[in-house]
Amino acid sequence: MLPEIRELIATKNKRVIRNVAQYFEPADIAEVWAELTLRERLTFFNALDTKFTTDIFEFLKDDQKIELLNKLSAQRKKAILNEMSPDDRTDLFSILPNEEVEKLIPLLEENEQVRARELLSYKGTTAGGLMTTDYVSAPENIKIAQVLRELRSRAKEIDFIQNIYIVDRINRLMGVIPLKNLLTASPLKKVDKVMNTYIPSVNLDMDQEEVAKIFAKYDEPSLPVLDKLGRMKGVITVDDVIDVIKEEATEDIHHFGAAGVTDEYLAANPFAIAQKRVVWLIILALAGFISGSVLEHYSFLLSSIVTISFFIPILMNTSGSAGTQAATVVVRGLATGEIKLGDVWRVVRKEFLIGILMGIIAGIITALRAIILQGDVMLGFTVATAMVLAIVIATSLGGILPIFFKKLGVDPALMSGPLIATILDTTTLLIYFNVTMFLLWRF
Amino acid sequence: MLPEIRELIATKNKRVIRNVAQYFEPADIAEVWAELTLRERLTFFNALDTKFTTDIFEFLKDDQKIELLNKLSAQRKKAILNEMSPDDRTDLFSILPNEEVEKLIPLLEENEQVRARELLSYKGTTAGGLMTTDYVSAPENIKIAQVLRELRSRAKEIDFIQNIYIVDRINRLMGVIPLKNLLTASPLKKVDKVMNTYIPSVNLDMDQEEVAKIFAKYDEPSLPVLDKLGRMKGVITVDDVIDVIKEEATEDIHHFGAAGVTDEYLAANPFAIAQKRVVWLIILALAGFISGSVLEHYSFLLSSIVTISFFIPILMNTSGSAGTQAATVVVRGLATGEIKLGDVWRVVRKEFLIGILMGIIAGIITALRAIILQGDVMLGFTVATAMVLAIVIATSLGGILPIFFKKLGVDPALMSGPLIATILDTTTLLIYFNVTMFLLWRF
Repeated sequence: MLPEIRELIATKNKRVIRNVAQYFEPADIAEVWAELTLRERLTFFNALDTKFTTDIFEFLKDDQKIELLNKLSAQRKKAILNEMSPDDRTDLFSILPNEEVEKLIPLLEENEQVRARELLSYKGTTAGGLMTTDYVSAPENIKIAQVLRELRSRAKEIDFIQNIYIVDRINRLMGVIPLKNLLTASPLKKVDKVMNTYIPSVNLDMDQEEVAKIFAKYDEPSLPVLDKLGRMKGVITVDDVIDVIKEEATEDIHHFGAAGVTDEYLAANPFAIAQKRVVWLIILALAGFISGSVLEHYSFLLSSIVTISFFIPILMNTSGSAGTQAATVVVRGLATGEIKLGDVWRVVRKEFLIGILMGIIAGIITALRAIILQGDVMLGFTVATAMVLAIVIATSLGGILPIFFKKLGVDPALMSGPLIATILDTTTLLIYFNVTMFLLWRF
Repeated sequence: MLPEIRELIATKNKRVIRNVAQYFEPADIAEVWAELTLRERLTFFNALDTKFTTDIFEFLKDDQKIELLNKLSAQRKKAILNEMSPDDRTDLFSILPNEEVEKLIPLLEENEQVRARELLSYKGTTAGGLMTTDYVSAPENIKIAQVLRELRSRAKEIDFIQNIYIVDRINRLMGVIPLKNLLTASPLKKVDKVMNTYIPSVNLDMDQEEVAKIFAKYDEPSLPVLDKLGRMKGVITVDDVIDVIKEEATEDIHHFGAAGVTDEYLAANPFAIAQKRVVWLIILALAGFISGSVLEHYSFLLSSIVTISFFIPILMNTSGSAGTQAATVVVRGLATGEIKLGDVWRVVRKEFLIGILMGIIAGIITALRAIILQGDVMLGFTVATAMVLAIVIATSLGGILPIFFKKLGVDPALMSGPLIATILDTTTLLIYFNVTMFLLWRF
């Protein structure tokens, strides 16, 4: 698509650009934006009308938006800011420095200024920070025909309308009429005879993760946002929720990989990334000293039976992997809500059994190695016994520790794979050396 | 909410149940379904009208749906199956045995039977498997007033209407009219004067992961599905896409934890789970033998300088963690599309630098331990040097291997944390023993 847009811009004919550009989707134009030169971007933008430029603008990346804001004429900037949907505008303001925002807000129409300041006052990761104030509401006591009239006058300025929200005198939400029902209802009926009165909604200060769960539960493309008194404050549309779901999954995955949370990896400074990761690496290294000390404590065993040291990596590795497997499934289950705090004993029972099954298989394989390569049956038996015990402990702890974190109010994903593996290094060594003393040392 | 529903059912008065139940949301009722006895479920269900029961039914879990289907009267079963939205019905059919489906399809109205068979013929994880055939289309050459009339006649049977799709004689998609524009357009205008002609769409055989990306890109609550000739086959709504995004994230996380993919963990048989996991555990254990052999090969070093063995766990652990951190970020970046195949050198340069920074810090900490606890400066220097090299290799490989997998057409998440850690065990031991020989052994 880039060559077509390039060619179009090269005509430098505003009318041609405007006419042809409407055959492109704003999201597609935004996708190739980075490939255009600044000059091309400005020529293109200045040829289009406000509605279309705003549609493209809303799809651009943060740095591209800021660049354009600095280069556009004051008049154009004003037009775009007024055309933007309130939630996207709030997102833009929240990445700009305060003094810049204070210069931009006065460019808005008067009633938009109040709304902009209100939206900015909500935390970005709550329902208030996600919602838009662009929605259609109507009082309880009017007729359908009047609602239709109101709707026609406002339809142009609102991107997506699914419901008409019916409110009382102090703006409390009383019911909703889906747009399609409005079409089939008799125009002479009162709205309160047509509206649905049971309406899923989210609270203004609800965390975005909770909001995403409510959207997933009710399968609605948009939901109203209410304050503590039940008053209508805005609407959240599902496209913003998709971003939240992806962000939350990324956060969980990064936590579980003990990698801190890195946004925009490719653009980020390596020093900044290293700083986030090294915190975890130091914690893990310090925790790793414990297993080093265990090794030191049992060094008399190592020096008298050198062969047992060959099995240390495989034991630590296998139990670490088994623990990571269990933690992975439980951390994700807690995130999606499939596993609840009360399920802790079901999880433990299940992981205990899984540990025994996997331990026996891994134990047999390791024993065979000891018997074949070292020719030592007793060593094989020792290693296999240690393997079964180590893996049972691994899967059980891997299942239990994330739930324990959640109980403490800590993000369970912070009980990461590497952290589990580090904890299990110590337990595995303790098990191995004690099994060795019991089975091998005494002979 | 459970006590209220219980109390309501206890009245056994169909009229009361029907009247009060409408104040509940179907999704909320479905959530407490598991807590009701079979008797309560049936009493409740049999009191409600078809529309409301179907709404609840669609929110139930698979096993709850199957139970109800077996218990409901033939007439009721027929009514619900006909009322269900085609995509939910297809999902239900796809979990039932074939002979059961063949008994159910004849219960549908004649034209629904054809649609049901067509939908069943698409793979569940493609656009065809996600779409519904419930949408409103209109020919090109009619007036807005006619579209409104058609819409009024069909609005009841369709859950969610965002767009009217305008098609030509062979059903090729020519344009869309958003429902809200229909309200503001003059009823006398021809549809082709009002419709938008550039429409994002998805292909019938597109993979669901790709579908989710297109939804995220265009921010639309629904998108049309076209076949290779551009003919309209159905519509995908965003609520199904949310499920896909969550499923895909779960799959990635499970893969990255080397846990296989487990659906419905709590309900699944421990033997089945163990079977999936043990495959990976065996692969990891066999790969782990390599590090065991390295250890064996250098056992002369271990037996002559016992202190060096104390640092093996910490070196393996720290490099494994550093590699997992890098792989985590890159695997997620590849999944969200932030990192592309062509970015491989940017990733390597970045991870190399991050590795040096983190290696120096981890090296200093480990050296201090050797100097303080073992009182051996040269040992400290040896361990620190090995740490820097091991971590640089770890972050670089952690960054490069998932991209390499993707290039081979393998899911990058399969280059899991435990697999990376296992590979790095070998490289770390090789580095450590060689550094030891070079710096410590010769003195």
